[in-house]
Amino acid sequence: MPHIDIADGMPGILGLFDFRPETAKPLREFCEVLLRDDNSLTRGERELIAGHVSNLNATPFCANAHFAFAAAQMDGGDAIVDAVRSQSVDVAISLKMKALLAIATKVAADGKTVDDSDLAAARDAGATDREVHDAVLIAAAFAMFNRYVDALGGVVPQDPNYYKTMAAGLISQGYAAATGSKTEFQRA
Amino acid sequence: MPHIDIADGMPGILGLFDFRPETAKPLREFCEVLLRDDNSLTRGERELIAGHVSNLNATPFCANAHFAFAAAQMDGGDAIVDAVRSQSVDVAISLKMKALLAIATKVAADGKTVDDSDLAAARDAGATDREVHDAVLIAAAFAMFNRYVDALGGVVPQDPNYYKTMAAGLISQGYAAATGSKTEFQRA
Repeated sequence: MPHIDIADGMPGILGLFDFRPETAKPLREFCEVLLRDDNSLTRGERELIAGHVSNLNATPFCANAHFAFAAAQMDGGDAIVDAVRSQSVDVAISLKMKALLAIATKVAADGKTVDDSDLAAARDAGATDREVHDAVLIAAAFAMFNRYVDALGGVVPQDPNYYKTMAAGLISQGYAAATGSKTEFQRA
Repeated sequence: MPHIDIADGMPGILGLFDFRPETAKPLREFCEVLLRDDNSLTRGERELIAGHVSNLNATPFCANAHFAFAAAQMDGGDAIVDAVRSQSVDVAISLKMKALLAIATKVAADGKTVDDSDLAAARDAGATDREVHDAVLIAAAFAMFNRYVDALGGVVPQDPNYYKTMAAGLISQGYAAATGSKTEFQRA
């Protein structure tokens, strides 16, 4: 993985946020609004979409982090994440979430492949226009974050506990604080 | 192109920003920082990368808009944009910009394909780490914006003057005002 001169040992997107705080600020705020603000999709459901797209894009830092955030914020989260990670159809989530994950899968490859039948399936399962919108935007956002990390990101911690600790910080402090600052990284 | 219930006739990303102002706000701020704030890459050069990636992704609204923004902010901009749009090697830009566009081309497909030789080529042509970073992030950002528009966006105006008028508004008012608000759209 090629490197620009980011701080030693800051993994994944954290070193990039530290390298360029001016662009990190609105990106952190965007994550806070999209993944944590009030929404009819739960925080866990939204993180599950983020982890799923990152997994499809084979970006392990983002997949491990957002799957950990999902698992920590859903009942039965570990089993759900394991099933989504392995792309099993046998996963204990709603038909609505299955339809939204199917849309996210298409967006990850090419937004133009989403068609009316995908939206009809989501609506038939009870998804609102805003839920469809948010699922699409989460998938599109991780097309960005994954590419950013893949092209320039640093090390990828292998210890699952790293991501669990990160999840605890995220849940207590949100994106603006928990995943962006050097202090919080050092704490994790 | 599938639709959610966005306002009639608001093209490209404008209808999506209008539909979901909460996520539009940090995204507009992100564009302002990345594409317009003080930078050793000119505004025209940064818009050229945005247009190039949108063109590779076959997202005409974004390609037309950002190529128009580039052309309006570079000496000889129309000829440069025509050459980049047709992926000609005969384009009157610096070797540094050619190297950054080559990196952006790789990021658009898959960030993991960027390797040390790509960064070495950019550095040999005089690019700084921050310029490499910003080129990567612009390319990654348009992986997001293109997918968002492709999956949910509205109509794509065919008249080139539409995009020239949009460029004039962008240059005078920036992203927060010029490309996000219904008022500004209606003016354009």
